[in-house]
Formats: sequence, C-alpha cells, structure tokens
Amino acid sequence: MSKWVYLFKEGDASMKNLLGGKGANLAEMTNLGLPIPQGFTVTTEACTDYYNSGKKITEEIQVQIFDAIAELEKIQDKKFGDNADPLLVSVRSGARASMPGMMDTILNLGLNDEAVEGFANKTGNPRFAYDSYRRFIQMYSDVVMEISKTKFDEILEGVKEAKGYTLDTDLTAEDLKEIIVKFKELYKKEEGKDFPQDAKEQLMGAVTAVFRSWDNPRAIVYRRMNDIPGDWGTAVNVQAMVFGNMGETSGTGVAFTRNPSTGENGIYGEYLINAQGEDVVAGIRTPQPITKLEEDLPECYKEFMDIAHRLEDHYADMQDMEFTIQEGKLYILQTRSGKRTAQAAINIACDLVDEGKITEETAIARLEAKSLDQLLHPTFDTAALKAGKVLGSALPASPGAAAGKVYFTADTAKAAAEKGERVILVRLETSPEDIEGMHASQGILTVRGGMTSHAAVVARGMGTCCVSGCGEIKIDEEAGYFELGGETIKEGDYISLDGSTGNIYLGDIKTVEASVDGNFGRVMEWADKFRTLSIRTNADSPADAKNAIALGAEGIGLCRTEHMFFEGDRIKKIRKMILSKTVEAREAALNELIPFQKGDFKGLFEVMEGKAVTIRFLDPPLHEFIPTHEADIVELAEEMNLSVEEVKATCDSLHEFNPMMGHRGCRLAVTYPEIAKMQTRAVMEAAIEVKSEKGFDVIPEIMIPLVGEKKELQFVRAVVVETAEAVKAEKGSDIEYHIGTMIEIPRACLLANEIAEEADFFSFGTNDLTQMTFGFSRDDAGKFLDSYYKEKIYESDPFARLDQAGVGQLVKMAVEKGRSTKSNLKLGICGEHGGDPSTIEFCHNIGLNYVSCSPFRVPIAKLAAAQAALVQK
Amino acid sequence: MSKWVYLFKEGDASMKNLLGGKGANLAEMTNLGLPIPQGFTVTTEACTDYYNSGKKITEEIQVQIFDAIAELEKIQDKKFGDNADPLLVSVRSGARASMPGMMDTILNLGLNDEAVEGFANKTGNPRFAYDSYRRFIQMYSDVVMEISKTKFDEILEGVKEAKGYTLDTDLTAEDLKEIIVKFKELYKKEEGKDFPQDAKEQLMGAVTAVFRSWDNPRAIVYRRMNDIPGDWGTAVNVQAMVFGNMGETSGTGVAFTRNPSTGENGIYGEYLINAQGEDVVAGIRTPQPITKLEEDLPECYKEFMDIAHRLEDHYADMQDMEFTIQEGKLYILQTRSGKRTAQAAINIACDLVDEGKITEETAIARLEAKSLDQLLHPTFDTAALKAGKVLGSALPASPGAAAGKVYFTADTAKAAAEKGERVILVRLETSPEDIEGMHASQGILTVRGGMTSHAAVVARGMGTCCVSGCGEIKIDEEAGYFELGGETIKEGDYISLDGSTGNIYLGDIKTVEASVDGNFGRVMEWADKFRTLSIRTNADSPADAKNAIALGAEGIGLCRTEHMFFEGDRIKKIRKMILSKTVEAREAALNELIPFQKGDFKGLFEVMEGKAVTIRFLDPPLHEFIPTHEADIVELAEEMNLSVEEVKATCDSLHEFNPMMGHRGCRLAVTYPEIAKMQTRAVMEAAIEVKSEKGFDVIPEIMIPLVGEKKELQFVRAVVVETAEAVKAEKGSDIEYHIGTMIEIPRACLLANEIAEEADFFSFGTNDLTQMTFGFSRDDAGKFLDSYYKEKIYESDPFARLDQAGVGQLVKMAVEKGRSTKSNLKLGICGEHGGDPSTIEFCHNIGLNYVSCSPFRVPIAKLAAAQAALVQK
Repeated sequence: MSKWVYLFKEGDASMKNLLGGKGANLAEMTNLGLPIPQGFTVTTEACTDYYNSGKKITEEIQVQIFDAIAELEKIQDKKFGDNADPLLVSVRSGARASMPGMMDTILNLGLNDEAVEGFANKTGNPRFAYDSYRRFIQMYSDVVMEISKTKFDEILEGVKEAKGYTLDTDLTAEDLKEIIVKFKELYKKEEGKDFPQDAKEQLMGAVTAVFRSWDNPRAIVYRRMNDIPGDWGTAVNVQAMVFGNMGETSGTGVAFTRNPSTGENGIYGEYLINAQGEDVVAGIRTPQPITKLEEDLPECYKEFMDIAHRLEDHYADMQDMEFTIQEGKLYILQTRSGKRTAQAAINIACDLVDEGKITEETAIARLEAKSLDQLLHPTFDTAALKAGKVLGSALPASPGAAAGKVYFTADTAKAAAEKGERVILVRLETSPEDIEGMHASQGILTVRGGMTSHAAVVARGMGTCCVSGCGEIKIDEEAGYFELGGETIKEGDYISLDGSTGNIYLGDIKTVEASVDGNFGRVMEWADKFRTLSIRTNADSPADAKNAIALGAEGIGLCRTEHMFFEGDRIKKIRKMILSKTVEAREAALNELIPFQKGDFKGLFEVMEGKAVTIRFLDPPLHEFIPTHEADIVELAEEMNLSVEEVKATCDSLHEFNPMMGHRGCRLAVTYPEIAKMQTRAVMEAAIEVKSEKGFDVIPEIMIPLVGEKKELQFVRAVVVETAEAVKAEKGSDIEYHIGTMIEIPRACLLANEIAEEADFFSFGTNDLTQMTFGFSRDDAGKFLDSYYKEKIYESDPFARLDQAGVGQLVKMAVEKGRSTKSNLKLGICGEHGGDPSTIEFCHNIGLNYVSCSPFRVPIAKLAAAQAALVQK
Repeated sequence: MSKWVYLFKEGDASMKNLLGGKGANLAEMTNLGLPIPQGFTVTTEACTDYYNSGKKITEEIQVQIFDAIAELEKIQDKKFGDNADPLLVSVRSGARASMPGMMDTILNLGLNDEAVEGFANKTGNPRFAYDSYRRFIQMYSDVVMEISKTKFDEILEGVKEAKGYTLDTDLTAEDLKEIIVKFKELYKKEEGKDFPQDAKEQLMGAVTAVFRSWDNPRAIVYRRMNDIPGDWGTAVNVQAMVFGNMGETSGTGVAFTRNPSTGENGIYGEYLINAQGEDVVAGIRTPQPITKLEEDLPECYKEFMDIAHRLEDHYADMQDMEFTIQEGKLYILQTRSGKRTAQAAINIACDLVDEGKITEETAIARLEAKSLDQLLHPTFDTAALKAGKVLGSALPASPGAAAGKVYFTADTAKAAAEKGERVILVRLETSPEDIEGMHASQGILTVRGGMTSHAAVVARGMGTCCVSGCGEIKIDEEAGYFELGGETIKEGDYISLDGSTGNIYLGDIKTVEASVDGNFGRVMEWADKFRTLSIRTNADSPADAKNAIALGAEGIGLCRTEHMFFEGDRIKKIRKMILSKTVEAREAALNELIPFQKGDFKGLFEVMEGKAVTIRFLDPPLHEFIPTHEADIVELAEEMNLSVEEVKATCDSLHEFNPMMGHRGCRLAVTYPEIAKMQTRAVMEAAIEVKSEKGFDVIPEIMIPLVGEKKELQFVRAVVVETAEAVKAEKGSDIEYHIGTMIEIPRACLLANEIAEEADFFSFGTNDLTQMTFGFSRDDAGKFLDSYYKEKIYESDPFARLDQAGVGQLVKMAVEKGRSTKSNLKLGICGEHGGDPSTIEFCHNIGLNYVSCSPFRVPIAKLAAAQAALVQK
C-alpha cells in the first residue's frame, strides 16, 4: 500500500516533490519546533492518481485522509465535526513550484448548522462564529460547487441595503444568521440538495476541488509561462484553523526577510490587526508596515523576528512568510523562498555569498536565468502601470516597455524623433523601407505578422520593443488614426507597449530604464567560471554586434546577410538582380552589391576583433525582395526600364504556395550560384582586408542554409571554395575560412553522418527544424495553438522552448551522426531557442560547443549555461 | 592490384554488374563459341574510379587497357596502329541496364594518315578505306572533342555541291581524301592541335569520352525516368571492327527472337546489305525484313537463325541481337533481352512458362511492374503520334492519352460531351464546381497547379488523362482561346494530351483503347500467389472503388472525405458551416451534411462488401472551401444572408502563409470537434445500416490525419469514441470499428511508440512526410528541382519514388517504434508512393501489412509486391 498522506511531523524540506513546497516547509518548520498549526499533506502523487483514475479519489486515499484527521484530532484535542468544540481546518493547494493565487483555498471547513453554535459558545463570540460560517458557505459553494460568488455577494449586499448598512462590519450576529439561511437556500436551488453538514463530506469535496484546480485555465496558462510540467500535480495541505480576526490581540500578516524589489537586507512586510488573510487580499483596509507590530504586540514582534532570521539562516535564502496571531499567540502559516525582482535576486545572491551563507555555485544555481531580461530592457513603473488602461493585447514580439506618440509612417516617425519626441510606430505591417523609422522609434506596433514577421525580427535585433499581429486594430494609416479597445487613437496621441507581455496601453506610462550594476557583473563572472558552453550572438550589423560584445558575447553565431539587402539603395540592386534575365545580367547586378556587402562584413569583423563570425548566405525566397503593391511595381518597372507586365510576370513567377517550403536557402545557391559567389567574394575580401589593416586573426565561417542532402552542400561548397581560393590568390592571402551548414531540415538530421563529410561545422536552426518536425508554420500556428494549450495537448510553445521529445531527438541524432563522421565537428545552435534556458541545458547535455542568441539574451544564456554545467556536476 | 579490364574470354553473363550488360553477354557468347569479333571490356568500376579521381583515368587502368590491346593483337593477328594492316576497333558504352542511344560510340578507331593507306591496300578498296577514315575523324571529333557534327557535314555537303553530287556514294576515293584534309584542318582550327595519329591516344580519348557520356544530360534524364542509380557507371567495350559495308556479301542487321510489340513467337527484324550500323539508324535506305536474308545469303541466314534460337534457349528470354556479315561471314555484335511492350512482355512470359522454359516465379520477376500502366490507360497510336506536332509540355498529372475538342468551361464541356463529342477541358485551374465538366472530359489541361492540384488529384482518382501546370499557355477563357507553341487554339479545335509524358499535341491524334486479355489475368494470379503484402486502393467514391475492385483491390486504404464536400449543394453547406459564428450554428450546418456523408459511406461499404475501408477525416484547411473571386464572394454573402464584409473578414481570417503547414488535419478536429463528431456519426450510421441491410461484415477504419503528438490523437479519439458509442447505443448495434492515424509528420515517426498507444493502425502518408522531411512543398519544388537533377544532387523525384535514405529512415523508425508498443499494429502506406514499385519493395521489406494506391495502379502494386516477396526469398 502506498503512503498518500503525511502528517506535518512525518515530512521534511527535502520532500518537496512529494509534499509540494508548502507542505514540505510546514513539515520542516514542525521539525524545527516552530509554532505551526498542525495538519497533514495529501501528496502530489495522490493528485496524479486522481487524474489517472478518471478524476476520482480512490478509497485507499480517502481512508488515509480520514486516518490523518483522526491523528490531527488527537494533536489538537478537538473533534472534527463535533458540535460543541469543532476542529476547523483550512484546505490549501501546494505544488512543487510556487503558483501564487493560481489554485484554490477553503477556510473554516468543519462548520455546520450545529457546530457553529458550539463554536459561538466556545469562542464567546457569536458574530465571529456566524461570520466564519457564512464565509465558509460562500467559499465552499464557489470553489467546490462552482456556484458564482457574485450570487452570494448580491444576497449580502441586499441585506446590507435593507438594513441601511454600508460596511460588512455593521452586520450583527442576527443579520449573519439571516444571511446564512439565504445562502443555504441559494445553495439548494443551485445544487438541488442541502448544503453538506457532514465535515468529512466537506473535506473530500474540498480536496477534490483543489486537485481539480490544478487544471483550471489560469493555472494552465501560468504553468506554460513558467515552464512547469502539467504532470507534476499539486499537494493538498489540511491544517488546523487559527484566527487572526478574534480581536485587537489577533492579526495576520506577510513578511519578507529582505526587500523583494531591491534585495536590501532587512525585514519587509505588512500586517493587519483583527483580520483574516482574505481581508488583506481584499484591500478594504490598508495594512500596517510590519515594524508597527513592535508597538502593537512587542512580544509577538520579537518572536516573529527571531523566527524570520532563523528561517532565513536555515534555508540560507530570503524567506517569504505568512503568519497569524490568535489572541496574542503567534503562528507561522507558511514559509518559502521569496519571489523577487531580477535586481533583488542578484543583490541577495551577492550578499548571501558575502555573508558566507551560500557558495557562488549555489548563488548561480538559484538565479532564474529568464528573469535577467528585466534588467536589460526598460520596464514600466509598477505604480504607473496600475493606472494604465489596457486597449488590447497581441504577440510579445520583442521585449521591453515603451511609451510615445503614435505615428503611422516611417517618415513622420523619423521626423518626430528628430524633434526629440518619443515615438511609437504603428503600421499595418512593416516592410524593408521602414527601417529608419523603426530605428527612430521607442516601440513598434503592427496589425499583421507573427513572431517571425519583418517587424518582429528586426525589432528583436535592434532590441526595440515590439508588439505584432494585433488583428483587432482597425487602422486607417492615411487618415492617421486607429481604433482599439473602444478608443480612437490619432497621430500624436500617446500609447504604451509592453513587448514582454504583448499588452497595449492607452496613454504615456512611465518607464524605468534598464540598469545593470556591479553585482550583475559579479554574477556574470561566476557564470563564466562555471559554464563550458560558449555563448555567441545573432547579429546582422556592427551596432548589434557591439551591443552583444558589451553583454559578453564571444562571437557571432548567426549573421543573416539578407537583412543587409534592405537598406537604402541596396534593395533596388537586389531587385535588379532578380529581374535579370541572364546569368550575365544577374552577375552584373550582383557585382554592384559587392562593395556594400564587403563594407558590412568589414564592419562586423572590425567590431568582433578576431572573434568567430558565422555568416549565413542568402536564405529567404526572392519574392520577399519584390514589392507587392501595384504602385510600387509601376515605380520599379520605370526604374528598371521594363514594362509593368514584365515586372508583374516575374513577380508572378516567384509566387509560392508555401514560401517556408519553397525556393530558398541553399536552393537559391544551387539555381543561382552567382549569388553565393558574390557573397563569398564579399566575405573573403572583407576578411583579408581587416586582417591586414587591423591585424585581427579573422577566420570567417560561411554557413549554407537549408541543406537536406550531402550533395547539395558539396555543390555549394565547391562554388564557395572556388571563389574563395580565387580571392586568396588575387590578394596573395593565406587566410583560413570554414564552411558549414545550418541543420534545420529533418532530413539533414537523418543524414547528418553524410552531410558532415562536407561540413566544418553544424549550426542547428531550430526555428525551421521545429516547423518541419511538427509540420506547422510559426506564422499559421496561432490559429490553433490556443486550443492545443486549452486541451493540454501542448504545454508550452515549441518555438520558445525546444521540444526535446521530438525536435530534440532529431538534434541529438544529428550530433551523434555528425560526430561519428568528424569527431571534432563544431556544433552550435542559432535558432531563437538559443536564448531559452531549458534549451540551453539540453544543448549543454548533448555536447554542443556553443549557443547563439539575440544580443540581449547573452547574459541569460551565460547564466543558463553555467546552471547546466552545475547540474551536470 | 584491382582488375579493371577483362578480355571477352575472361567473363560471363553473371558479371553484368562489373562488365555491363553488353560486355557480359559478349563474354558469355564467346564462351558459347559463337562468332564474336573479339575484344575486351573496361569495367563499370573503372568508370566509378574515373569519377572519383576527378574525371581522370588512372595509370593503372591505362596499363591494363594497353595490355588487353596487346592480347587482342595476338587474337586478331594484327597490330594496333600498324601502318600496313592495322587493328581497328569499335569503342562502345555498356551499362548494367540497357540505356539505348543514351551514350556514345566510336567506330573505326586505329586509323590515321598512314594506316588508312595500308588499310586501303589490304582491303583492296581505297574508297572504303578513306570513307572509314573520314567517318572516324568526324565521329571522334564529335564524341571525344565535342566539335559540332554539323561543321563536318557542311564540309561534306560543300564538296558534294562543288562536284554536283547528290548522294554520299557518289564521292570517290579522291573526293574523300580531299574531305579528310578539310576535316583535319577544321579539327586543328577548333582544337589548336593536329588530329591524333597515335592509336593509343585515340583509344584513351574514346574510353574517356564514353565514361564522360555516362553523365550527359540525356543519360541523366533517362536514368531518372528508369530508376537507374547514378553511381552504377558504364563499362566500355573495345572490340575488333568488322565491316558490313564491304560489298554485296556484306551487311548488317538487328533482330528479335519474338515480336517485341505483340510477343508473337517468331523471328522479327531487318537488315541492310552493304551497310554499317549507322546507315541503318540514319534511315536513308529502307532496311529489308530479316526473312529476305534467306534469299540473299541463305547460309548466313541459317547460321543466324540457329544462333538466335540457341541464344533464346540459353537465356530463356526473348533476345534482341545485332549482327554484321563481312564478306559472307556472320558475326554477332551483341545480344540482350529485348525491350518489349507491356502487352508483349506478358504474352512472352506466359508463352515461355507454357514452353517450360521458365518458372512462374521467373516470369513474375522479369516483368516490369511500371509498364503495366500502358495496359490500363488509352495510348496514342504510334504511327499517328509521329505525325503530331508538340505544342508544349507540362506536368504528367494523370496518365493516359486523350484527344478531343477544346472547351474552356465545365458547362460547355459537359454540353458538348452530351452531344457525343470528345472533349478536352482547358482551364486556368480547376475548382470544385468543375467536377461534372471534368467527368465529362476525355482529358484535362490546366495552366496552373502542380501534381497535387485539384485537377491532378481528381483526374487521377477518375482515371482521366490530365496535364497540369502548363505555365507557357496564354489563356483567355472568356474570349475562348489559348496560345501555346506559336499556335492559337480556339474553342472547338482539336488537341491531344499525353498524361503519361505531359506532352500537348496539336490536332486529333488517334488513341488506342486499353485492353487486358487472358494472359494479364494469368500474370495477376501468379502475383497473388507469391505476394504477402495486401493491396488496397485510394478511392473516394463507389465508382472509383468499383474500378479498383475490378482490378483486384482488396480494400480501401484511403478515402478522402473532403472530396465529398465539393459535389453539388454540399459545398454550400460546408461554407455555411465555415461562416458560422457559434458552435451551435456550426453543428446545425454540419447536421445538414450528415445525410450526404452517410450516403457516400453507404455507397462505399456496399461496393466493398465487407472489405476494409479506411476513411480519413477532414484534412484540408477550411479556406480551400471558400471562394476567392469577388463575384463568388458576393454571391455567397447573398446566399448566407451576410454582408460582403463579414464574408470577406472570414475569408481573410482563414488566410494562411503556408497552407501546407497550417490549420488542417487533426488540428481542425481539435479546434472544431463537431466536425469529427459529424463525420463519425455518418460513418457509424452508414456501417450499421449496410451491415444490417446487406449482411456485409463492415468494420470501418477511421483515420485521423496529421497527428504529431500522442495527446492530439488521444483527444480526437475520445471525441470519435464518444459519438461512435452513442450511435451504437441508439441503433442497438455491437459493430466493431478501428481508429488509427496517418503518419505524415516527422514528429509522429519520432514518437511513434507513444502514438501507437492510441492507434489501432498507422497509415504512412508519404506525400506530406516527404514534404516535411525535405522541407519543400511539392507545389513549389518545381522551381528548383530541375537544377537539382542537372547538378546530380537528386537522381529521382522524391514524390514519385520514396527517398529511402531519409524519409524511409523515418518510416522504418515509426514501424519499429510503433510495433514495440503494439506488436500487432496494422501498418500500411497510402501516399502516392504506394503505387511505385521500388517503394513497394521497401514497404515489403520493412514489414508493412498493405500498400494503397490509385485504382489503376493496383495491378502494378500487385506485381511489385510479388517481385519483392520473390527477391526476399
């Protein structure tokens, strides 16, 4: 027989997976001899069993719960369901990872029509007793039976109105009795049966409700946001009630051992005299700072401070504690490692190391890598944000917070920025011509386009806040306004964007600039000491590269050359190339591009000072460079001295049914080797010149995208080598260069042993690999992914967190097969997963050499890499 | 040291892989003591070595060739390069598989300025000698040096004109000498050096040219069409020359031991007196039937007939032989198993079995499965076809030949067909509304759309000839004409289509109806005896199913339910469903579809009489059901009583960037479970009714498409089971049913062990699996696949022949993982590869239970399955 239920005294802090965080800590504190209202924990395994048994709690588990109640009765010296002096309990969720407010709680369980009388008698406080009972009925009906809470509130308000009261506290014991009768009538009407009078029936209903709440929609969303697996389940803690609302020597509060916003060492918290937890949450009365407790109840304060320090020392971490004082006696209801801002986390970690309480390893292991994002992008001022009105929400395409005046064209945005205005560029969708306007903006909002749209990709590279794909917007760019959330926003009006959540706010919300202080650098140094993975960045321009180096990047893992084609006059030249009808004409047009490409590469090589630079050759299908609007086509035809029909015919011939699976990547280099030749020449000339001019040891890495077959890479490699050797001979240089490939097609993984014969390195392009492996495109998946989350088919977005079971299997296969051919094959990842901590751990474990991510994710990647190395140790 | 060169007397027929077909047979005939001009074979491995050594013949191989020449000198008692009595040789290609006319041949090699004099002396025929030399110079320059043949022809014609000759035979020895001088001058001008006088240099040049010709463009195309691997290489046969042009007792000819068109037993061939092989090919003189030889040279005829019978008995197969008679002496130059029509192949196989010469197993093993296609579709009359003018060529979307009058709309096509006209429907692209017009047509031609376009898929299902995606056509459907190949074709003009080659012809070319006689049935019986794979068909209608059963199908492996939605009024109902705004409205619209779907399924179940029927639930994205033209949208809005804006908004919201990777397959069932419920109800009610009305043991197989994750299938399975059990309960039925999935997403293969937990069967959808594994869409790959063939990156179309190295690896993985979970998991394939013989062999080898293919491919599949079983034995 399995053990499904543990008394607090049977557990300890190490049993978090089984007892949940709250249960394990209650057990630990019991062992430490702290004043804990006693109780027991129904395990997370019981929750899993509940789901596996078709949402039923088995007889065996029920028996163990009732046995534990019997034990608790002995400890408390009260009887559960007793009419004279009933044992009342709280029933609370408690998962392995803290999920505050996501799941359900029931207080005062054990009361019924008769027990409430005994309870009134025993406490000598009938009003208190009846208030406890009506609260219980309401909470139980809401949580267990899912009867809308507002129906009860209506009854309560009705009575208050009839009596001419304004406050709940005006209600007398008799009023509350009347309300209880009405509550029970409502219950019977809704459920077709009486409110349960049997305490054990109440208890099993409450436990079931907590298990069920593990799968409520907000818990599912929270888990997805926080990478918590859906099969963990929650434990249930049943604990004897204590009451903070029994008079002026009672109270309840919450406190942190250090400041959770700044990390400052010193108790930080608040409390309310004569109140229950829910009153604090309800916000009707304003809580007092915890230091005030010293005046009100000095003994309790002293005892609490002792316990707080003891708990922080015991756990060697900042603690977040809940306590209740019942008639002058202090009880600790919960302790846990406190949630904190990234800034506080770093400061606390450094302080604890300095205080000798933890090692550097522990400090690194405890930090949440993802949260560093907060430190690197502006955020909204918390208070200012509360006052903001949310107009709508769309895709969080590039993180950070931004506020500014709305402009609808790149030109007006640029002009306004030059006048010193903060600008938000709002567009139906952005296109290459908008680059300068995007650069001048604080934030970018688009109506169309997904996480890989032009706006999203460019904004992430720039580190500019971007919210994309807000289909609810009705926009009239020409008239200069848009409608959203019932408001009409005109040019020059202020809006604010949160690129980390996707929220769009009305008005000018104050932002707080990112700042990294000395402790951040210290943490990064520790991370560098422990990690074995190298961290590179995805950067397409010297500015991006400079940013990334400042944040600690050790090389460029992905430079997307196509972005270089959009700037200024270049787009015209690339269009000329596309419209060429012969190889010769195409070569001539490409030759005009060489000086630009070469200049771009020189800029990169100079900034990188000899660090690795991986340059990916042209990847997108050519139609991405061609205009779609009639007017632009006419203009292009004039410029190119072609008929509109000819230009249209070319555009038509480039049309693709599924561009993601079309004529792109190395397929372009196979059909138009002259493009690869041009790019090779630009790379090699730039490298040779920077090497001789600056003395940096430049070894360019040329990366061929979308390879699925060895002979494909063999062909393109031959083209590259021929040109590279020719350039070397022309310049009399003996420069080294490497040629590798992106592994982003399932077939490339399956045949990696063959492909490795032609490759000096592999870089996993997990964006495309995920698309092909799942068979859905990132831009289209939005239509059904929400249903998939709702039905618990997927727990997380496979484009944000690598699907290790499926895509990861292919990556691992490619690593093993590739290294079986070339044991020293250099391996990296350059998909957006390269900045995701769980993916980085996976990359470490399968033996990659580096990960590459956007500049602002470099610190996150470093920390995650260090954590992965520590876990492995 | 490897052996790279074999004298004919050193080889035998079993060494075909090493010596090529021609070389092995020359060796075999030498061993049989037949009159063969002696020589030697440079092996196919030497060819492979040539390519691996950067297109160079190594010293070692050259030494062995010269050694063999020395041996040949001894046998022939002549010296190679001798001036008095030179040994002349022919140099011919000879691959493992016959590739007639694809590679190069050089005759009379060994002549030079001095040797030609000796040769003239020795033969006593100076004109013959000089003619041989000028032919050699021309052939060598063309084949080895790639100097255009026409430049030589111009010289020849110039001399003839100057002399006032009309025939080549008018040229005298002196004329030919003059021509030789001019030929050599041309050679020097083109090559910058003299025509090679050294016989060994000539020989090495010729051998190199034959190796090189293995990779000429027409050979690459031929190999792709005939599934011949590019790494086989060709052997080179160097053989002493014999001359059929030495007078009236000389000649040359070709003969088959049985009629290659009909299979009739009896010698069939033709010959020319006083001629060389190239004269026969050139077609200037009309050859005589072989029987005429009995009159001309009775001794030779008798000897040849003896040899012919001996060779057929020896190889136990119909032989195709080349012979030359030099001054009354017969030489056999080549024998091989003769190419034959499918009809002849079947008749010959049956005759040989009846004659006791081969077993049924051998008969089956020898037949070419693919060729059976010829027997099942109309073909063009060969003679009529020669006279036809090719207007253009596009995708061979559905096989067969068709001729008829052009119509541009489904309605006019249907009306014309009702008047008894043969009709070719020509459309920009077809849409669901065109179904009836397509059905009424002999053939379908479209301007847009690939092998998976609406036109292609529907035509294949109907067995109607279709050529699709002819982008060169300029069409004006309203004005009623199109332009192609310089011709304007108006409504009512005749054109002819070859759906097996993609050719489009001007005019009304006579077609020959398909006919299968008794021998075909006999061969199918043998195939049934040997095969272990079951053969099903892809059929969406009772008519298709009936066809397939007549051709021997044992079940339906894929019924695509979406095709049922396009007919008649149904498309309106499905559009109503799509435009519904609530689940209830959607359910109401779907309920209207149930009677139709149920009727469709009843029809299928009745025709199939209890055989397996696999029904795939709705697969395409919903936008495929929505009109795209403004006018149609307006009409739809009126019908649906909605504003045009609302309809457009829905259409817009359904737009997808990459429809292939969009909201389709089981993703529809997850977001709209009501669709799956409707389809389940229709299937179950139909099955129960047919079972009770007709007594057939119907066990429907419901197939969920595009699954990539176990939980996805789990969810949809639960929806299906719930409805199915409800229907069973309503009807009081205990009918069995199976639920399985299509495996068509790479991730499904990677996680097949998990998915198998929820599946009763797997059916591999290798069309989509190929697209996702390669990362290119079938509709878009046309833009670059030709370059890939040209550069030898791919040898065959992965959508026609399964890519065993990549996609096959995934299929095999899924088979193993699936069976590891459920050892009795039923496995099949229903992609178009299911009708491809090489894929069928693969399916047999990895242990699938069945393959499913279009009705007209069922006999091919049966034969291929039998062959696979025999190979395995």
